[in-house]
Amino acid sequence: MYFASDNAAGAHQKISDSLLKHSSGFAGSYGASDLDKKVEAKFSEIFETDVHVFFVSTGTAANALALSASAKAGGIAICHEDAHVIEDECGAPEFFTGGCRLTPVAGDGGKISINTLSTIMSDLAPENVHHGRLMATTITQATELGTLYTVDEISALADICHQHNVPLHMDGARFANAIAFSNVTPAQMTWRSGVDYVSFGGTKNGCWCAEALICFDKEKAQEISYMRKRAGQLFSKSRFVAAQFDAYFEDDLWLDLATHSNLMAQKLSNGFENSSFADLAYVPQSNEVFVVMSPAKALKLRENGAVFYEWPLPRSHSSELSTLVSSGKQLYRFVTSFQTTPEDINKLINILNAD
Amino acid sequence: MYFASDNAAGAHQKISDSLLKHSSGFAGSYGASDLDKKVEAKFSEIFETDVHVFFVSTGTAANALALSASAKAGGIAICHEDAHVIEDECGAPEFFTGGCRLTPVAGDGGKISINTLSTIMSDLAPENVHHGRLMATTITQATELGTLYTVDEISALADICHQHNVPLHMDGARFANAIAFSNVTPAQMTWRSGVDYVSFGGTKNGCWCAEALICFDKEKAQEISYMRKRAGQLFSKSRFVAAQFDAYFEDDLWLDLATHSNLMAQKLSNGFENSSFADLAYVPQSNEVFVVMSPAKALKLRENGAVFYEWPLPRSHSSELSTLVSSGKQLYRFVTSFQTTPEDINKLINILNAD
Amino acid sequence: MYFASDNAAGAHQKISDSLLKHSSGFAGSYGASDLDKKVEAKFSEIFETDVHVFFVSTGTAANALALSASAKAGGIAICHEDAHVIEDECGAPEFFTGGCRLTPVAGDGGKISINTLSTIMSDLAPENVHHGRLMATTITQATELGTLYTVDEISALADICHQHNVPLHMDGARFANAIAFSNVTPAQMTWRSGVDYVSFGGTKNGCWCAEALICFDKEKAQEISYMRKRAGQLFSKSRFVAAQFDAYFEDDLWLDLATHSNLMAQKLSNGFENSSFADLAYVPQSNEVFVVMSPAKALKLRENGAVFYEWPLPRSHSSELSTLVSSGKQLYRFVTSFQTTPEDINKLINILNAD
Amino acid sequence: MYFASDNAAGAHQKISDSLLKHSSGFAGSYGASDLDKKVEAKFSEIFETDVHVFFVSTGTAANALALSASAKAGGIAICHEDAHVIEDECGAPEFFTGGCRLTPVAGDGGKISINTLSTIMSDLAPENVHHGRLMATTITQATELGTLYTVDEISALADICHQHNVPLHMDGARFANAIAFSNVTPAQMTWRSGVDYVSFGGTKNGCWCAEALICFDKEKAQEISYMRKRAGQLFSKSRFVAAQFDAYFEDDLWLDLATHSNLMAQKLSNGFENSSFADLAYVPQSNEVFVVMSPAKALKLRENGAVFYEWPLPRSHSSELSTLVSSGKQLYRFVTSFQTTPEDINKLINILNAD
Repeated sequence: MYFASDNAAGAHQKISDSLLKHSSGFAGSYGASDLDKKVEAKFSEIFETDVHVFFVSTGTAANALALSASAKAGGIAICHEDAHVIEDECGAPEFFTGGCRLTPVAGDGGKISINTLSTIMSDLAPENVHHGRLMATTITQATELGTLYTVDEISALADICHQHNVPLHMDGARFANAIAFSNVTPAQMTWRSGVDYVSFGGTKNGCWCAEALICFDKEKAQEISYMRKRAGQLFSKSRFVAAQFDAYFEDDLWLDLATHSNLMAQKLSNGFENSSFADLAYVPQSNEVFVVMSPAKALKLRENGAVFYEWPLPRSHSSELSTLVSSGKQLYRFVTSFQTTPEDINKLINILNAD
Repeated sequence: MYFASDNAAGAHQKISDSLLKHSSGFAGSYGASDLDKKVEAKFSEIFETDVHVFFVSTGTAANALALSASAKAGGIAICHEDAHVIEDECGAPEFFTGGCRLTPVAGDGGKISINTLSTIMSDLAPENVHHGRLMATTITQATELGTLYTVDEISALADICHQHNVPLHMDGARFANAIAFSNVTPAQMTWRSGVDYVSFGGTKNGCWCAEALICFDKEKAQEISYMRKRAGQLFSKSRFVAAQFDAYFEDDLWLDLATHSNLMAQKLSNGFENSSFADLAYVPQSNEVFVVMSPAKALKLRENGAVFYEWPLPRSHSSELSTLVSSGKQLYRFVTSFQTTPEDINKLINILNAD
Repeated sequence: MYFASDNAAGAHQKISDSLLKHSSGFAGSYGASDLDKKVEAKFSEIFETDVHVFFVSTGTAANALALSASAKAGGIAICHEDAHVIEDECGAPEFFTGGCRLTPVAGDGGKISINTLSTIMSDLAPENVHHGRLMATTITQATELGTLYTVDEISALADICHQHNVPLHMDGARFANAIAFSNVTPAQMTWRSGVDYVSFGGTKNGCWCAEALICFDKEKAQEISYMRKRAGQLFSKSRFVAAQFDAYFEDDLWLDLATHSNLMAQKLSNGFENSSFADLAYVPQSNEVFVVMSPAKALKLRENGAVFYEWPLPRSHSSELSTLVSSGKQLYRFVTSFQTTPEDINKLINILNAD
Repeated sequence: MYFASDNAAGAHQKISDSLLKHSSGFAGSYGASDLDKKVEAKFSEIFETDVHVFFVSTGTAANALALSASAKAGGIAICHEDAHVIEDECGAPEFFTGGCRLTPVAGDGGKISINTLSTIMSDLAPENVHHGRLMATTITQATELGTLYTVDEISALADICHQHNVPLHMDGARFANAIAFSNVTPAQMTWRSGVDYVSFGGTKNGCWCAEALICFDKEKAQEISYMRKRAGQLFSKSRFVAAQFDAYFEDDLWLDLATHSNLMAQKLSNGFENSSFADLAYVPQSNEVFVVMSPAKALKLRENGAVFYEWPLPRSHSSELSTLVSSGKQLYRFVTSFQTTPEDINKLINILNAD
């Protein structure tokens, strides 16, 4: 009953097999191998357009590189106040960009609203050397609270960004879960809706280390290649990242794995919803479930082997949620993964509901 | 007959098997797993002292992190003018350190001589805000030319550094080859000789991505952990780097692989030495062989399937070498690896010597 | 009737005379002159302790240098959300610190409250490599809204900082006004209350370019000297900054000038208070007066020669203030200076009150 | 007899008078005053083209800003190995550019030769992510050794730069001396010869703090304005820099002062040349004189009141010079300024030649 993080799940058998299969022989290094080229072409096929693909070692690196591609003196990037880039990356975006700023904004359910973005960008738009100037907006899909932006919302956010001549970046650490949950294609969710960069994560969804920055703007690609190398993020044996993605995309494994973890999250959330001992904090749209319950119940779950985190109230939260939590209960996060089983969920819910 | 780079070799079967073996189940992320802890302890055992181990994605990242741990305003790090840090890392050391400077010095055989280091450090030692100030020295072991520093040389270099209160860093991208070739322990080659940081590379020697910064100074360790995260270099599924090192160290696999590639380099260099069509540029002490021959011979080798690089004259080179090269011949680099076979070398030398 | 900014006032005659007086002859450069030494000693006398004084060209540079003296990977500095460092310095603090972050907090009257600081620092205190870690707090005295922290408040804020092992920096762009208004000594307002760095501004108060970073911590001084030079902030003819401060401190000119501008602000605020056409937004405690009035009245003042800025609502503001402003009125800022005359104020108020 | 540095000379009376004259009244800050605009127009007149002028506090800041305008990931700027940017700026260029590299090259008389630049740029031109890439070349006019580039040389250097699509920057800390000595216009010496940026120094030539970055490329100007502010280099009372330049250009004061100091350098160098106790190291073409003499003679001069520096051998130096110096003699630097008098020089030479 391991729900602490999808990072805690290992690697899918097919990913490991692919690594094994490509272990022998010799191949070009630093991205020059045939396998690297094949996978890059596969990304273009998936996104239905020619994309530039930059393998990096972590999602943090992908996010920071994307922002550094837009960096300028006095640059300001807008993000949600609960976003990974500002909460969990130790200042990597600021470091990679030479000191640009992240300006956090509030928003329900981990999402930046169209109105909020419009207001803050208008507020910061009049360029002058004192205030600094807009350089990018970054959103997370699926969000840190397990919710999703609709394609219409993404389009509207992108429009606002482009009116101000700055790009829209999508942190897709759980991009597969977002695609699997919704009924849209990768192209629709990204560049067709105006997204300029995607941090495409495979690690949380069954790879062991497969992260890529996807760049739809050819003119930025050369710059990024230097920025990546300068950041110590160019793998010599790059083909082993390629090998993971090769298996990841084969027969839509990536969507199968994400569909599974999403279904497990649904099953888990149903269990919580039907329990008198728990209250769902958000309606899950990917593989994260946030729930409010008593510390006593949490303790009981843990004593029976469940692993999960108590979670601080998001900086942006509804008054209902804070009321729930303030009454002696706590917020907890459960993350499902490709390795989560229905049996584990049944067991968890049974323990929860046992008097 | 693939001699272009040890980066072009794949991964050893035992490394891949270990990745496969550790794929299932759940484990702590970001270095918290039991396997991470086990491997960290193994490093301490190998170095015969408690070390701090920082897994990173590339040797460039390890080098840049080590230097950033010593960074200060106006900081100057001394390196060999043919070193990887200054020739092949796209400014990563400068970027990580917030703009510190690498000051290159000349030296025969890819090595900084004791006299040279003593002179340059004395020259730069009088601290004033105009010139800047010393912050570190970095050497490569084995060097970029396949040669080795002796333990006495390392001790003497470290003494000079410490007289000036700056640390000595060792870029050990081919550390295993250096240990396997010499008759000294990892402890002797490093901290017992005064080395403060080692970039410990496993990738070139049969891993697919296993690089670590080894820090002997406990006080610096906490800072480095933040610097690593800020650089997007903290793997979420860190245990898969640990899994590689676990197999790498098991039954001294690392030394066996390095011994093999060193022997292949010796065999290759013997073949060149005994040929009337080639002149060795350096006596190889690890797994790189530099040889001068005619472009016609190089072409013939390539036409028969050999893969290797023409190599520019090192910035530091003897007059003999430049004379050799200027007479219509070229310098070429051959790198052996754990996958190099005696058959390949025999075949290569036979082609070379065929009329 | 020039109330746009104290930066718009020229230089006091005695400052200019001192520049003229010290123009002839030769003297040591880069801070080595007798005059530099004399002024440094004078700073120590004023602050009643040995201080390190770093002349820089702007208040922005002083602030950014102070923060860079505390910089660390993942570093977070707390500031008020309306502070100059985050609103008006184009990311200089982030740039100087290599990408550290300013975390803005709300607070009435331009001030960080003790409770707010205590909460945010406790919130951010548990160090981990994901969130980053505290590195400093910076306050402004007098604040951007013309208000003052009491010595007790400063002490309490400093205590919280020191409990978390980070320094407290004071942006003293209008330090003279703060001292002149209150009944405390420079020592009491700073290091005796726990302040570690002061950006000591002379420019707004009658100098033409006289800014200094005052450092009470001897151990940091050497580092700052390199950081200043690296930032291109070490004047070759440093003695001309010294010449300004020399006159500035002579016979307490600095306090006389600040007292005058404070009195002018009081007179102006009295005028507003007694007018039925204006509402004071804050009780001024230095030389800035914020007032709410109708755009028609503002236009009339301008048509009659008054120069002043319409001001956006501070990010932190009371509901009363936003109510006032939302009813068709606007917030305006008036800044007095050593050149402001009672006649100008009388004239302004008369125009305001003329039906 | 003060020859230590032109930085040690004070300010010319007309400069101080102008500061005094513009002290009263109110004016726009941050470069918005009429005086700022007037001086900017004057720069355009002097350079016979529309230029963008950025006042900064030091020559180091001007140089670093110019290079940061060309910064890119992995960027490499070529400079002379004895240049101020690499010898005396504490890493400011690297800091401002986010870690770009200065690659020093040798050259007689403080000058980069056309052949040297052509070779190094061709060597570094093939862009790849490992080596980094060219971003700029910077030369000093007059050089640190008091010599001058001819207009033909500048044109040839600029052509090489532009073939590689990088700009040529001129560090003109002693630009006035260069113009006054040669028979060419500011336009000819700069943009008509292909120079893209000039650090225009007034401080060494009679101002107290008047430095400007001149940018001939309109497209870069907006970026530089943000970079300047971010570096804490935007003066609030910018008009006082303007006031200095206003007097500096009035009736060609700048050229008169430079002509004077150049003549004093000629007189001094004649004195050395005609003495049997001294050997000129370089033929001076501006206001610096380098001479070799015995330490005994130097001591005697100092005992009689002369102030000057012993100077290390330039990194680039002729064998003749090193022979001269190795024979128990030393190299010394004498700098003349607008305040140097013929009497002082006569006196110095008389003391030198007295048995």
